[in-house]
Amino acid sequence: MRKIHVIGIGAGDPDQLTLQAVKALRSTDVFFILDKGELKSDLVQLRRDILDAHVPEGAYRLVEARDPERDRSAGGAAYSPAVGDWRSARAGIYERLIVEDLGEDETGAFLVWGDPALYDSTLGILEEILDRGGVTFSYDVVPGISSVSALVARHRTGLNRVGRPVQITTGRRLAEGFPDGVDDVVVMLDAHQTFRQYADQDIDIYWGAYIGTPDEILVSGPLAETAQHIERLRAQARERKGWIMDTYLLRRHPRG
Amino acid sequence: MRKIHVIGIGAGDPDQLTLQAVKALRSTDVFFILDKGELKSDLVQLRRDILDAHVPEGAYRLVEARDPERDRSAGGAAYSPAVGDWRSARAGIYERLIVEDLGEDETGAFLVWGDPALYDSTLGILEEILDRGGVTFSYDVVPGISSVSALVARHRTGLNRVGRPVQITTGRRLAEGFPDGVDDVVVMLDAHQTFRQYADQDIDIYWGAYIGTPDEILVSGPLAETAQHIERLRAQARERKGWIMDTYLLRRHPRG
Ligand SMILES: C[S@@+](CC[C@H](N)C(=O)[O-])C[C@H]1O[C@@H](n2cnc3c(N)ncnc32)[C@H](O)[C@@H]1O
Ligand SMILES: C[S@@+](CC[C@H](N)C(=O)[O-])C[C@H]1O[C@@H](n2cnc3c(N)ncnc32)[C@H](O)[C@@H]1O
Repeated sequence: MRKIHVIGIGAGDPDQLTLQAVKALRSTDVFFILDKGELKSDLVQLRRDILDAHVPEGAYRLVEARDPERDRSAGGAAYSPAVGDWRSARAGIYERLIVEDLGEDETGAFLVWGDPALYDSTLGILEEILDRGGVTFSYDVVPGISSVSALVARHRTGLNRVGRPVQITTGRRLAEGFPDGVDDVVVMLDAHQTFRQYADQDIDIYWGAYIGTPDEILVSGPLAETAQHIERLRAQARERKGWIMDTYLLRRHPRG
Repeated sequence: MRKIHVIGIGAGDPDQLTLQAVKALRSTDVFFILDKGELKSDLVQLRRDILDAHVPEGAYRLVEARDPERDRSAGGAAYSPAVGDWRSARAGIYERLIVEDLGEDETGAFLVWGDPALYDSTLGILEEILDRGGVTFSYDVVPGISSVSALVARHRTGLNRVGRPVQITTGRRLAEGFPDGVDDVVVMLDAHQTFRQYADQDIDIYWGAYIGTPDEILVSGPLAETAQHIERLRAQARERKGWIMDTYLLRRHPRG
């Protein structure tokens, strides 16, 4: 039977690969790499660098495919269906790759950014392919260091405060209001610097962009004092590189 | 100046160490190991095994100290102060270790279970020592695979559903009610199987104990069907080993 590893590769620092991930890389015959277009080719390059560093050349095949375009124009309530369509399109592509490029007794792998458990569609897509019933395979998941763990490590702070909860959410959700029942909130996938909405509150931000890479930028402090600075840095960096990935922790102080 | 690494070592599987952690281990002169008493000596043993596997003998010193007893009798509202006292007691011990056992130009390390960012006091303690002003040092944090990442990887599921938030909290908090505004909740530090409180709701549980170790136990399914089974397994395992560490994800289905 075909086997597939879903391997978390960390969020930018190639040393944040685990020993388990290295072993999984070395037991893989075929790597599937999905290219999201030129803008993010740096991210594809990191995957190639990881292979070069840990797997002997000639020991594996590399299969590259172009990722389907995601309909980003669909905003608001239409978000989920658009994601659903895109996932199905992706499932079709993955299924074809598995059928055509992976032998019956071979092991394939998807290299997933950060931790496959956080805002990543690979596991859902593999389940969708299995549900369709056109091909069978077994698969396992190798956890990775997420951008969330990398962010707080760089800021040398914890995710939660003693005995208290932490929520991980998206920029889109944060725009609807500060989450109920928590004072520590990690925000991912925020294209609109939604933290600005809370700059009048007693909140500290721990912000990071391109974490773990040579372009890493870190800023922390009271939101009131740092929000504009972050906004400016973010715009400049995005302009310079053509894309940006940033994550932040908001830590609200108890009212007193 | 003295340097200190706070190194996340993963939550049980020695292969879940990162390459960055291995490099940090190899650049350490003195490892500080706090023993929480006989019951958890398996956990101290894992730290020794990691050193044996990755650092040449004779290349480092090992300093062991007994952790202060934590006053677990203080329940309810008294929880935070008891934690505070215990943290200060610990800060006193750590400070003495650093002053007495780490040379001015040496590098020390604390090996932290899982990810230092999740429900761990080491970073808070180091800040407390620096605040006291009795000794100075620089320190950095090496993120680790948390028991949370390891749990969901073993269950091959994500932490969040598409575009939705996830909350990480404690058993104590969950006992006060299902958190507002989220349907995906990870629970740690639960000595009372608080999931039982929700067994009449349409919730799936992904539960794991001793994750990543040879004793690992995994159960998943609708809470109504699995709660009693988990309760029984947990009691047996705890009896057999003398201690248990378990974590779980609760995934609530939308009402319809
Ligand atoms: C589709 S999600 C994937 C998250 C990934 N699975 C993880 O564990 O980090 C992409 C989001 O992750 C965050 N992200 C990923 N890598 C990052 C990095 N190196 N620096 C800052 N943020 C990052 C950003 O919030 C970005 O919008
Ligand atoms: C004091 S917290 C430390 C968490 C740790 N920093 C981490 O990242 O996993 C201890 C709690 O972590 C969880 N835990 C740690 N290791 C575990 C394991 N191997 N299996 C299951 N749960 C674990 C349990 O919920 C336990 O009560």
